[in-house]
Amino acid sequence: MSSERIDIHPISGFPEWLPNMRLAELRLIDAISRQYERYGFTPIQTPIVEQWDILTAKSGAQRQIFTVGRPQEGEQDEDQLGLRFDLTVPLARYVVQHANELTFPFRRYAIDKVWRGERPKRGRYREFYQCDIDVIGMGQLDLAFDAEVACTINSTLETLGVPDFQIRFSNRKVLTSLLASHGMDAQAQTDVMRLVDKAGADLRSVRRVLNEAGIAPDAVASISQLIACADIDAASQVQGVDPEGLDDMRAVLKDCQLLGMPSGRLIPDFTIARGLDYYTGSVFETFVTGHEQWGSVCSGGRYDDLAGYFSNQKYPGVGVSIGLSRLFALLTHMGLLDSTRKTPTQVLVAMQDRANLYQEYLALAGEIRSAGLACEVYLQQKSLRDQLGYASNLGIPIVLIVGGNEHANGQVLVKDMKAGGQELIVRTELLETLKARLIQP
Amino acid sequence: MSSERIDIHPISGFPEWLPNMRLAELRLIDAISRQYERYGFTPIQTPIVEQWDILTAKSGAQRQIFTVGRPQEGEQDEDQLGLRFDLTVPLARYVVQHANELTFPFRRYAIDKVWRGERPKRGRYREFYQCDIDVIGMGQLDLAFDAEVACTINSTLETLGVPDFQIRFSNRKVLTSLLASHGMDAQAQTDVMRLVDKAGADLRSVRRVLNEAGIAPDAVASISQLIACADIDAASQVQGVDPEGLDDMRAVLKDCQLLGMPSGRLIPDFTIARGLDYYTGSVFETFVTGHEQWGSVCSGGRYDDLAGYFSNQKYPGVGVSIGLSRLFALLTHMGLLDSTRKTPTQVLVAMQDRANLYQEYLALAGEIRSAGLACEVYLQQKSLRDQLGYASNLGIPIVLIVGGNEHANGQVLVKDMKAGGQELIVRTELLETLKARLIQP
Repeated sequence: MSSERIDIHPISGFPEWLPNMRLAELRLIDAISRQYERYGFTPIQTPIVEQWDILTAKSGAQRQIFTVGRPQEGEQDEDQLGLRFDLTVPLARYVVQHANELTFPFRRYAIDKVWRGERPKRGRYREFYQCDIDVIGMGQLDLAFDAEVACTINSTLETLGVPDFQIRFSNRKVLTSLLASHGMDAQAQTDVMRLVDKAGADLRSVRRVLNEAGIAPDAVASISQLIACADIDAASQVQGVDPEGLDDMRAVLKDCQLLGMPSGRLIPDFTIARGLDYYTGSVFETFVTGHEQWGSVCSGGRYDDLAGYFSNQKYPGVGVSIGLSRLFALLTHMGLLDSTRKTPTQVLVAMQDRANLYQEYLALAGEIRSAGLACEVYLQQKSLRDQLGYASNLGIPIVLIVGGNEHANGQVLVKDMKAGGQELIVRTELLETLKARLIQP
Repeated sequence: MSSERIDIHPISGFPEWLPNMRLAELRLIDAISRQYERYGFTPIQTPIVEQWDILTAKSGAQRQIFTVGRPQEGEQDEDQLGLRFDLTVPLARYVVQHANELTFPFRRYAIDKVWRGERPKRGRYREFYQCDIDVIGMGQLDLAFDAEVACTINSTLETLGVPDFQIRFSNRKVLTSLLASHGMDAQAQTDVMRLVDKAGADLRSVRRVLNEAGIAPDAVASISQLIACADIDAASQVQGVDPEGLDDMRAVLKDCQLLGMPSGRLIPDFTIARGLDYYTGSVFETFVTGHEQWGSVCSGGRYDDLAGYFSNQKYPGVGVSIGLSRLFALLTHMGLLDSTRKTPTQVLVAMQDRANLYQEYLALAGEIRSAGLACEVYLQQKSLRDQLGYASNLGIPIVLIVGGNEHANGQVLVKDMKAGGQELIVRTELLETLKARLIQP
């Protein structure tokens, strides 16, 4: 071994959790997966790398992408590779590549990391999780899926224990038709959409941003009138707005109601524009009530053409993505995540009398594991006090102690590390006792 | 959208599954995690990148490592980064970096991808999963953990339904002491260890490889005598073998027996050497009976010093790693994995009468999901025949059909897509019926 030690330091923008936080994060991921699967979304996973030309097909992304270098083995004919920066580009590539083997509409979810080479700042990571669901049609996809996707998110956030939240939504066609009525072409519409998205929900700041960008005053007035509308009927009165987008919004609202979404959960909001220019219909953003300043924890929408860069076949779709890192931070901030446990272990079998009862301890652990509980035996040579300290440090809820007396009497001392009490239990009733204490209904 | 289409092709060595195989792979990963947690191992996840100097601290690995490029933003002071090529180096770095916040012995598991820039060949991937468990001590770690780790693997493979397998093991001290008795220094011992590992289990090929490498004839004779030994007692008769390693092996065998491992599962085998030179005690390899030619599906061992390159503190540990990609391929080959389902969906609600019963279908799906079952409503405008084709293509086991008559009578037609039959069920008994059919005990 070298005598010069390597200097170890965290890599900026690449977070890493201690066991208690990773356990909490995994529980969150498991709950989200379970809920996504309950709605019939199927998990797929793509390689972390994609061809460079696929990642950069859309201009603008290039500067964010990490390159992945090939080893120096003279393999000149290989692709240049980059790390994926979202889960949508890989989905588009996957759908086109495997179209003949997939069944459409294709409902997929993906919970995976993505990487962006941005300069890290204020809780902005270079490696972070996204949790995406999308339904992809071949040629055509019914509007009913927009509501389905919104409802999946609603029930997922409910399952996670988020006390109250609003899914604010609009439809790109509404603002687009208004802008077209002012003679703007597709590029100008996209630019305005991005400005509105950037300005956020505040009417005055939208107006200022649009004026600064040199948008014509009558257009600014129209846009201001639209985004000030509190409901769909009001928006239908704005001159230049084509009714199609509003009809879509009414249909989505009605379906969500039929699917059992509580009233007031899905709210029309004409300030919602989304910055990405591939959205063509519904657009969603989700805010936790009382924590709106954290930004949207789940965003998405409908797009006409997922894979226009790779295929002549049209693949319309609708999808949303939970920003897991932000949601995790917010739930932690709100005290809604239990991060006291630093191990999955529920029961520690103390090693009190190694010389005589070693076999008994190992057998006990085997039985407890067979009952589906997480258990370990303390295998180091330490005092009982140290062993209890170990359990306490890790947040292990129960310690079992069996000394010569207990063993002779067919008993086990069950020590509750949280409540602090202890109880002598007949050995044959141990599993029942542990299950009753540990398995939440 | 561009009119020039990008050419999409698979990236060599980076496998990607269709939904049915990914579902099967995820079920495998879930089962392994559950079992690892049952033994008290806690999950950790590290970034996919590590500092270049950490990855290359051990010579030899460098050529295999993928470099990760920084975006061109003039951040000259940042580290050079590479993708991790195993889960052990990141563990060593993690333990040293967070030592003050961890509780020792530290039991961790990690199921994650690693990347090696080898030229891909014969089922050798550049991106693949490893499933590691390790117990790390600070300063000292009891020998009892060697058996604990072996038993965790035993019960994990049993849980996965592997019908029969053998964990073949040895102890590095046995061969090392023998080689020392022939006057070999540490480097020479390591070289021989690697040769024995490379030669495999066949005695004649070991002898040939050692002779070709110019090892002294009396040493070759001793080594041959040792690796021909069928049990620990026979090995104790070989001149030059120090009893310490053999005593350790006896202790591990005995503990595994106490932990309930079936006899004949853990087998002393003095041909097991392991190529990696950080092992210092027990070494394990695992072979599925009748499929030994696939190689070891789970290997590992005991090491004295996990983090010698980064820390003056000694961290002894013991760990094993399931090669998930190989095991997955083998279980598939053996027909032990169900890969008929292409979706988590268990129940498809057909859209037979959209005009009148749309609301009923959505409500039905909501109830079924609330009961914990995965359900989707068919939302596209297609014939019932097409809808049944969709369910059949995806392997969805049950389709529910409600037409005007069924609805009026408070009934649901339950169509079994596997057995082929169908049954009219009273609406109020539907959930019970579905649960009985779908939830395996």
